[in-house]
Order: sequence, then structure tokens, then C-alpha cells
Amino acid sequence: MSQPVDSAVSAVRTYIEQHRAAFLDDLAEWLRIPSVSAQPDHAPDVRGSAEWLAAALEETGFPTVEVWHTPGAPAVYAEWPSDDPGAPTVLVYGHHDVQPAAREDGWDSDPFEPVVRDGRLYARGAADDKGQVFFHTLGVRAHLATTGRTAPAVHLKLLIEGEEESGSPHFRELVEQRAERLGADAVIVSDTGMWSEDTPTVCTGMRGLAECEIRLYGPDQDVHSGSFGGAVPNPATAAARLVAALHDDRARVAIPGFYDGVVELTDRERELFAELPFDEGQWLRAAKSHGTRGEAGYSTLERVWARPTAEVNGIGGGYQGPGSKTIIPSSAMVKLSFRLVAGQDPEQVRKAVLAWAPGQVPEGIRCEISFSPATRPCLTPLDHPALRSVVRAMGRAFDKPVRFTREGGSGPAADLQDVLGAPVLFLGISVPSDGWHAPNEKVELDLLLKGAETSAHLWGDLAEHWRPVP
Amino acid sequence: MSQPVDSAVSAVRTYIEQHRAAFLDDLAEWLRIPSVSAQPDHAPDVRGSAEWLAAALEETGFPTVEVWHTPGAPAVYAEWPSDDPGAPTVLVYGHHDVQPAAREDGWDSDPFEPVVRDGRLYARGAADDKGQVFFHTLGVRAHLATTGRTAPAVHLKLLIEGEEESGSPHFRELVEQRAERLGADAVIVSDTGMWSEDTPTVCTGMRGLAECEIRLYGPDQDVHSGSFGGAVPNPATAAARLVAALHDDRARVAIPGFYDGVVELTDRERELFAELPFDEGQWLRAAKSHGTRGEAGYSTLERVWARPTAEVNGIGGGYQGPGSKTIIPSSAMVKLSFRLVAGQDPEQVRKAVLAWAPGQVPEGIRCEISFSPATRPCLTPLDHPALRSVVRAMGRAFDKPVRFTREGGSGPAADLQDVLGAPVLFLGISVPSDGWHAPNEKVELDLLLKGAETSAHLWGDLAEHWRPVP
Repeated sequence: MSQPVDSAVSAVRTYIEQHRAAFLDDLAEWLRIPSVSAQPDHAPDVRGSAEWLAAALEETGFPTVEVWHTPGAPAVYAEWPSDDPGAPTVLVYGHHDVQPAAREDGWDSDPFEPVVRDGRLYARGAADDKGQVFFHTLGVRAHLATTGRTAPAVHLKLLIEGEEESGSPHFRELVEQRAERLGADAVIVSDTGMWSEDTPTVCTGMRGLAECEIRLYGPDQDVHSGSFGGAVPNPATAAARLVAALHDDRARVAIPGFYDGVVELTDRERELFAELPFDEGQWLRAAKSHGTRGEAGYSTLERVWARPTAEVNGIGGGYQGPGSKTIIPSSAMVKLSFRLVAGQDPEQVRKAVLAWAPGQVPEGIRCEISFSPATRPCLTPLDHPALRSVVRAMGRAFDKPVRFTREGGSGPAADLQDVLGAPVLFLGISVPSDGWHAPNEKVELDLLLKGAETSAHLWGDLAEHWRPVP
Repeated sequence: MSQPVDSAVSAVRTYIEQHRAAFLDDLAEWLRIPSVSAQPDHAPDVRGSAEWLAAALEETGFPTVEVWHTPGAPAVYAEWPSDDPGAPTVLVYGHHDVQPAAREDGWDSDPFEPVVRDGRLYARGAADDKGQVFFHTLGVRAHLATTGRTAPAVHLKLLIEGEEESGSPHFRELVEQRAERLGADAVIVSDTGMWSEDTPTVCTGMRGLAECEIRLYGPDQDVHSGSFGGAVPNPATAAARLVAALHDDRARVAIPGFYDGVVELTDRERELFAELPFDEGQWLRAAKSHGTRGEAGYSTLERVWARPTAEVNGIGGGYQGPGSKTIIPSSAMVKLSFRLVAGQDPEQVRKAVLAWAPGQVPEGIRCEISFSPATRPCLTPLDHPALRSVVRAMGRAFDKPVRFTREGGSGPAADLQDVLGAPVLFLGISVPSDGWHAPNEKVELDLLLKGAETSAHLWGDLAEHWRPVP
């Protein structure tokens, strides 16, 4: 039935090369929309981004495209049934919202005016996640054009949400409400990365995420640090002491119960991690960091992929302008995020923080803690047939052996797994230097097109090798 | 020679009552000038404030008035020699610059548009320090008018600086350069407070002040807390841990050498403190605080008047906007102030901080510490004859026994003591509820006018009771 491998690979590659310019023009148009879901004043842009994507998916050929509204930002849903009724149903997940970005944060160019320099496309969302959503449109067109099909080899569905960068507050509800239409045999998440330009990898799990803001209130207003200093509890000091108490001297999270249920790494997983060509100097350059530091007893990769964390994302209180101001501030705040791994329940983590934090705060300081909706961790079985298809498709696109990683970041993939009862697979082509959430986010154009090639190969491979039991 | 006490008291009171309205109008005009020395964009206002004061002092009758320029903000100097050559020379010190203030910080009215409500004048600088500088103009006029003099009973000098709220960076240099003209037998500092509306007090010492900003640098830019969290040192966490390490569990400053040289309280001083009608509930209301906390083994008054402190005036790092941003921030900063007591040397404290802080910071985080120029602590002998004059003058103005306090705040008084070799005395009428450095700063109008009365009585009393040995 299928063409010989070599000619299929070259046909896909030729098709994608021919359509590269138009594809990049379209992506740039999408990237110009500042769909920042965390900033309320960008709500119209997030809606505009959804409408833009819906139109682009119709243009691609999806017979059904819908914008799904939520109490927050809208998601985009599309489906394209196969002409083979017994083929697997696959749901592609991604997001069209982006992190906040401002030129003055250190961008070399406007974050919402995409530019290509040295084979890289720079823009907020280039890699996280518009680029990786959009390569599927070129992928499915290449799949059809090079196989002569009029419909994909699998029943293809897309769900591209608009609140991922805000913790997906309405995503689980949306998936629960639309579970029947979203029903799938596997979920392909394209919101992750691979090891490096030279080492294609498939990710087998993501960390979860619980986020909270802790506000500490001291004097009812700022007071003079001369008249009152030394005798009044200072909320900035209290915030600092609370943060300092988050970790013990071995850099383990010191909140009682935090590690309950954590699935420890197996020897096989530690071996797979160790097979990767890890270069600490290179990793540090990607992290822009001048040192590593983390939980004692684990390697750097183990720390970011398979261990839960507590990080301060923001801290603030008192005077932050030029010069000095001799006050005891009235309040202080800390934004914390906890990355979770398989076996941890976000609700239990929330309870553990709520039980722990007030005890860290001295008398005279009031403490308010608010959690955002959490994202669950997830982990894919290494021997799942759909995972093997992803590995083969990626291998054909990259002409290289494909290795295994995990992802330290978080996505609502586990909600899809929970609600739909489908395994979650990760297909991502971003590399660590892409600068997710940072200034000068970019995507490597070569890898973006390899993503489209992988997508083009994947649907036929899945249909050929996997007949899920209904 | 002198009039009977009762008639002198009532003559001064009548004069001041008659001139009250014009005095308050003039003060309001001065308070409208936002002379915020810590904010570079207000530099023209600080200059304008100096010029306004110089004109007002000429109007008062000072034969010599000069604006003294510095590399920063200008000071105002005035002198009015006595017709009694053997009278003491007294230098009044205050400042015409103010703390930053903005309506949105919680002010009920524009901080630079003075309003009178319920016998209180609300404006930034009303108590700290324009009001307390300005009562001397009414005081000296009352002194002359009620004694029939054409020149004050003492050789009177005024030095009103413009950088007190910025740590007086050029004040010592100014005093050293002008030491001959500033030469005095005693310095009267009017930049302090008294116990309460009902309990007039004279202050016998001020704490000193050393301030620094510590900047901690981690990754070269903000990085994704999912991709890198758990393995990269976080500068916000490092800042928090540094602040947490500032104090031990007994709330003592934990920097080695910090307490070196501290003059401990004597039993007599602890008794004088204990004589004051201290009401912890009332003090807490003034502090707007919901609890007390401080160095173990000391009372609240002892903590704020006679013990050195380390306070966080500001802390910041990472994302502080609405919603969340899952980053490891690139940098964080802490603004610290150390209140110092007699016996502590600011330079030794600076060295102690510089020796201690880097050891609190993990590998991979770079630490930069910058100190502002410091203010020395000072302490006045309880039995000094000029101090007895201040106590008598205040007693006549208030018709009440005068008790002794200290001041937790800081001023460059100790520089005057050092350079001029003159004892420093404190004459202040502000009360703790005046809200120095806070929103809704105010001065009690009755007390402001009692300040003018005290000033009116003081010059004659000093000349009568004290003939300093040249």
C-alpha cells in the first residue's frame, strides 16, 4: 500500500520546501497578534488570534472548524475525518496564547513583529506555541498531497486552546463538556521541545504546575523605619523568611507532605537520560545561567524532568524606585510556582502549602494565599504503539535515531488523558535555546519544517501500525 | 532684666495667635513645592524650595541669608547676630526636602496641596520637616516683638539642608567647608518629635543610618521555570535567603561585628524611658501595626530608640504584574537600612555587611552591594546647660513638666557635633501619629504654634543662663 520510504521522505520534503515561503508568511501574520492571555487588556487579541487560526484551518481544508468560547479566552477546534472508518482517531493539542513580552524586557526587536535572522524566526510565540501548532497545517497538506489522499489516514482532530500561559483555568471544564466530540485514541501534544538541533527526541512526560500568590500584610500603611523600625514586624522580611523556608539545606522542598506520592525514577529511565549527549556547559548557556543548583542526589536532567520544585517567579514589597525610602512597607507579595511530577496531586500540594505557610509568618502579619487552577503531571508508557509511530515519523523526517526525554514544563495534557482516557504523546521540535517565556524567543526554521515533515509522516504510520480496539 | 514668667508667656502667646493666619498661609505656600530630593526629576523643585525659604527668612528679618549650593541639592543659611556680643551662638538645623509622595499611595488628598482638617495640616513635609523649620520664623519674631529687642538675645544661625531625605550625601562636606561660618556653642535640631500631644518631651539622641542596595544577578535573562526550574539558582530565592539570614531567632541582627561598640542603655536611661506613659495599644495604632516584634530582651521603646536594627525597605524581582509568569527571574534586589546607635561606626557596619553578604549567596549568583553615604548616631548629655534651657522654654510654652525621650529616626546632627565640636539639642513638636514618610502626613496646628512659643522663649533663656567659655 505505502510508497517506499525513501521516495515518501523526499516527496514530503519537496512539497514542504515548495510551500515554505507562504507557510512562513502566514505564521508571521499570526505571530503579529499579541495574544497574551495573562494580561486582561490583551483579551481582544487572544480572541483575534483564535479567529485568525480558525480561518487558517478552514483554508488548510479542515471541513469542520469552530471557535469554542469559554468564560476566559476561546479555543479553536477542528476535525477532518479519515475515509478509513477503522483508522485511529488522533487529537492534536496546542495553544494559541503567548507569554507577556515587551521590547524593554531585553528584546532586540519588537516581540510582535516577527523577523528572520540567521535561519531563525524571532517573535513571542515562535516556538511556544504558535510555530509548533502551525507546522501541522503544512504537515497535513503534505500528507495529502504526497499520498494522493483527499482525507487524512487517521481521523484528525485539533484542539488549540487560548489560556495555556495563564494556567488553562477553563480547559478541563471545556474538555469535560465537549468530551464526546474530542474523543480520541491518542492525544498528540505539540507544545514541547526536543534535545537539540542534532538529537531528535520524543518526550515521554511533562511536569505539572501549581501556582500561588502569597500576600503578606503588616502595618496598615508604610511607616517610618526610624520611628518604628526594630519593633514592628516587617512584611518584606516575613516574605523573605517564608521563601527562605521553602527549601532545606539540600535544596529539597521543605513543605511537609510535598513529596507524598512522587513516582521515583526507575533505573531504566535514569539510563535513558544518561544516554543523551548532555553537556553541562551547553545547558548552562541555554539556561543563561552561571551555575547549577538543585535537589541533592539528582543530576541536572533529573532535576528539571523528573523532580518537583518550588520556584519564586516574582517577589515584591516596599520601595523599588530610584534612591532610597526609609519605610517599613505595608505589604509584600511572593508569586510561587510548584512543578509537580507523576504521582503528585495538585490538590494535595495546595493543601500542604495552605497548612504550612501561615506557620512561617510572625504575629502581626496577615497572610493571604490564592492558588490559580493547577495543571497535572503526566507520563507516557515507553512501549505504547502510538509512541512508536511518533518515533518512526520523526526518524524519517530527521534521518537520525530518535531518543527519549521528558519535559520540565507543564501543559494541560494530563487533563486530556484523564477526561478522554487516551494516552498522551509529545511531538515537539523546539530546542532549549529557543527562549520560551524569555526575551528574543525564536524558532529554528529548519526544525520547524522538520516538524511539518514529521506531521506529514505520522498520520499514515499510525493508521498502518495501529488499530485501536474500540 | 527678664519679664515675669507669666506675662512673658502670655505676651508670646498673644503675638503668635495674632500672626497665626499669615504664618499658616506662608507655610502652605512652601508645602506646595514638591521638594523630593530622592527623585532626580524633582531637583528643580528642591532648588525652588530653597529659594522660597531664603526669601521667607529675609522677610522675617535675618540680615544675612544665603543659598548654599552643593553637588546635590542646595541648603539655606541665615544668620542674625545678637546685640550682646558675649551671648551664646546657636545654630538651628532642619531640612527643606521631603520624602516621595503620590496620591495613589493612599493619600486622602493631594500630598502637595495642603489642607486643614480637624485642627491638622495635611501635606508631605508638614511635620518632616518644613513645619518644624518654619515655626522658628514665627518664634524669633515673637521673641523680638515681646521683648522689644531689635536683634535676638543669642547669635542666631540657621542651616536648612536639602538632602536629608536622601541621606545627606553632601552635608558633611558642606559643614566642613563652611565650619568657620557655622561655628556655634550649641546646635538646635528641629527635626524630631515629642512623646504625645499631652506629654512634651525633649529628645536626647538620634539613631544613625546606613543604607545599601543589594542586587543579585542570576541567569542573563528571565528563563522558563519549567525548562530550567529546579536546576538553576534563582536570584529571587537568593535575595529572600539573604534577608532571612539578617536576623537570628531572637530578632538580633546576625551580621558578625554588627553590634561592636554599641553603647548599652544605663539603668537611669531605662528608668527615664519607663517613666513615660507608654501605652502599647496606642503605640501600635500610631505604627498602624497589628503586633510588635523585635530584639529579645528589650522593651518596644528601647528597641526603637536605643537598639540598632536591620530593616528591609524594599524587595523586588521577577514578575509583579497581574496574573502569573512562570519564569526564573534574571535578577532581584533588596534595599536595606541599618539604624545605628551611639558607639557604632557606619564605616565598620558597611565593612561588616560587605564581608557577610557574599557568603549568603549561592554559586552562580552574582552580588553587587552599593551603600549610600551614612548618617552617624548621636547622644546628648542629660545635664548640659543648653539642654536645661530647652526644657525650660518648652515647659513655659506647654505649661507642663517636660520629660526625656530619644528619637529612632536619623539626621545628620552627629556630623554637626563632630565638625563643629558643639553639643546637639533636639527641639521637636511632631507626634508619632504625624505619619512621617507615610501617606497623609500631617502636623497638629496647636503643637506647631507651641513650637513657635518654645522658640520664642528659648533664645532669652539661653542667653540668661549660659555663658559658654569661648
